[in-house]
Amino acid sequence: MKIYRYPNQENWQELIKRPAFKREEISKIIIEIFSEVEKNDDKALIEFNKKFDSANVENITVSTEEIQNADRLMSNELKQAIQQAKENITKFHASQQPQIEKIETTKGVICWRENRAIEKVGIYIPGGTAPLFSTVLMLAIPAQLASCKEIVLCTPPDKNGNINPAILYTAQICGISKIFKTGGAQAIAAMTLGTESIPNVYKIFGPGNQFVVAAKEYAQNYGVAIDMPAGPSEVLVIADEKAIPAFCAADLLSQAEHGSDSQVIFISTDLKIFNETIEDIEKQIKELPRNEFAQQSLDNSNFILLNTLEEAIEFSNLYAPEHLILALNESEKYIPSIQNAGSVFLGNYSCESAGDYASGTNHTLPTNGFAKNYSGVSLDSFVKKITFQHLSKEGLQNLGKTIEIMAEAEGLFAHKNAVTIRLNQ
Amino acid sequence: MKIYRYPNQENWQELIKRPAFKREEISKIIIEIFSEVEKNDDKALIEFNKKFDSANVENITVSTEEIQNADRLMSNELKQAIQQAKENITKFHASQQPQIEKIETTKGVICWRENRAIEKVGIYIPGGTAPLFSTVLMLAIPAQLASCKEIVLCTPPDKNGNINPAILYTAQICGISKIFKTGGAQAIAAMTLGTESIPNVYKIFGPGNQFVVAAKEYAQNYGVAIDMPAGPSEVLVIADEKAIPAFCAADLLSQAEHGSDSQVIFISTDLKIFNETIEDIEKQIKELPRNEFAQQSLDNSNFILLNTLEEAIEFSNLYAPEHLILALNESEKYIPSIQNAGSVFLGNYSCESAGDYASGTNHTLPTNGFAKNYSGVSLDSFVKKITFQHLSKEGLQNLGKTIEIMAEAEGLFAHKNAVTIRLNQ
Repeated sequence: MKIYRYPNQENWQELIKRPAFKREEISKIIIEIFSEVEKNDDKALIEFNKKFDSANVENITVSTEEIQNADRLMSNELKQAIQQAKENITKFHASQQPQIEKIETTKGVICWRENRAIEKVGIYIPGGTAPLFSTVLMLAIPAQLASCKEIVLCTPPDKNGNINPAILYTAQICGISKIFKTGGAQAIAAMTLGTESIPNVYKIFGPGNQFVVAAKEYAQNYGVAIDMPAGPSEVLVIADEKAIPAFCAADLLSQAEHGSDSQVIFISTDLKIFNETIEDIEKQIKELPRNEFAQQSLDNSNFILLNTLEEAIEFSNLYAPEHLILALNESEKYIPSIQNAGSVFLGNYSCESAGDYASGTNHTLPTNGFAKNYSGVSLDSFVKKITFQHLSKEGLQNLGKTIEIMAEAEGLFAHKNAVTIRLNQ
Repeated sequence: MKIYRYPNQENWQELIKRPAFKREEISKIIIEIFSEVEKNDDKALIEFNKKFDSANVENITVSTEEIQNADRLMSNELKQAIQQAKENITKFHASQQPQIEKIETTKGVICWRENRAIEKVGIYIPGGTAPLFSTVLMLAIPAQLASCKEIVLCTPPDKNGNINPAILYTAQICGISKIFKTGGAQAIAAMTLGTESIPNVYKIFGPGNQFVVAAKEYAQNYGVAIDMPAGPSEVLVIADEKAIPAFCAADLLSQAEHGSDSQVIFISTDLKIFNETIEDIEKQIKELPRNEFAQQSLDNSNFILLNTLEEAIEFSNLYAPEHLILALNESEKYIPSIQNAGSVFLGNYSCESAGDYASGTNHTLPTNGFAKNYSGVSLDSFVKKITFQHLSKEGLQNLGKTIEIMAEAEGLFAHKNAVTIRLNQ
């Protein structure tokens, strides 16, 4: 834990630094994996399952039977929880469907936008220690709401060649039936290039390790879009004198447990709250099963005392956190000054895990400072907005002269002529 | 001109092919240019001006005097035209500002999104034969509406070291004062890295040649976002028996004149309209100053007879054109079936040049098939959408159990504890 008391603004740049990635070494491996998948299709994926996941899988396609079985393997309690989360996420994302608004910019000239689903999308769900069925909800629900025609889900099998039932169950209740047992960069390659079993898609979503992240970036060379660039997960908590140290400690730890490279920043304007939060972390961390991850992550994390909340918000805007918790007495007051953040949690009862699972907001958010220039995933991420326009004859008469003059000034006479020929008719 | 009469659907894949880019050779040059700009800042840009634009420029910053002088060099007619276009573009893009809608997903759990401007954006305007002041309107207006704090514009100087007055004038009336005389990949490098004069930005917009396109892609490695991937401009026109051949010909030519790599596709279900349009093109092309470009582009373009409008729309969705003109008797009827397109022009009087200049829609649109997975530029392109949430104590009580169960099922006990500790308080 690195503690900074009232650091000068000149030194803030040092405090907002993220850990650096090593890219070059990875990119060679990614190119090899893409080439292998291009050459050997499903067979390549089966081999990679053996190599990287120690899994013997005859058929990478998850069978209908496997999906149906998942239902039996789930507790009713967990099914109900997933159901409530699904309802909230659906409610919030459905509200993002815009009304079509036709604008008459000049008399007879009507312009509007309409959403159209990206027809084929791919969802990647990492395997590993935690089965991220919550991410299935976060990506499959808006894909369904957007009416994407083909939704493909790839996730690595365990050593027995199985997929965690919670992932299969969640996919099923979200209407996804094309599920494939393949993970890592090879899954991204498969969704980019297509194989015998896996359809290629136009946009790929979902988190993953550095190989997955690099593979998604590489996929763009094939014309595939991706949800956003990525980095390790992060939270910034700002606490004033009304914050509750035990809550702040719990929130910081819930970020820290993600992995050793998770970023945690704590800012307080109150010395007592600052010290007590640190004490509470020491207490709470002992109880955590993943305390080793959490400790490594905390070792690299910054705990900062600042004089004013205005300074704290300024620091946060500079850092551009994925998650920002405002554990403040008047948290709403600071909303207008929030410039860069992925998702903001207001007050003492809005813990990050609410948004991670069930409040309704999306948990696929820009990390690594990308909150400066990217939004999190939303319904928008699964659609294109197409502009439409209709000019009546009168509309073109009202606007024609302007177009002719501008086209001529740009030296584009055929552009001008497309108007002239109509006006002269 | 390549003519296809009632081609089989199996052969459509051949007809939707775009010309291929050579990437590898360019990327070396781009890396060198970025490294040169990183090392020598403004001095590098001054040298590149000499090398690539044969321009001797002492100061790359356009002076206030130069901007003011531009006003005097413009005809009143052109100023008025730009003004009308500006009003329409402003009206349409202002309508894209969403209302904040707070959603109570569970009692006591309130979620919403708010737009925040991307603070620092860069606009690239190409030089060359046509001074694209219309693109200044298309990018500067939404940047201003979004309230971007810093808007930087780069454009190459002519041989005398000057910028076209129409570009300066348009930038000025759109409130842009930071204008720099630098073009090509070096301009993109400067906006990515920053130099003594040019501030670095978070997102870069604007068209350009293949060096600019490659430089924008490369800029992403530095965490800079870009408007969209790019390729040569293109139009697809669908004409039925009520279309007017002279109008179709004029629209096809206005796309073809952009450059020899422009893509033009004409589809008709009516043999008479098909033949007459081809005849009209032969007639109209003779009158065009840029007829050499147009001819080269037409040589590579596809003219296709199909049996039904349903087939024509299906072909168009497969091609995913940047511009789609529906020169149809009942064009509105086909709107719901349009799946992939950048911008759609309905009926006989909605020529593409209306949208290129003045109707109000944006002309920065996805080309090269990217209309399958990208939207054109809009107000959205200049903002991030940040999610906010507020849970009251009651809200967390209503949702807490669900979060605890899900977090535990994912093996994330600190996530669970952030709820438990609050519920137990």
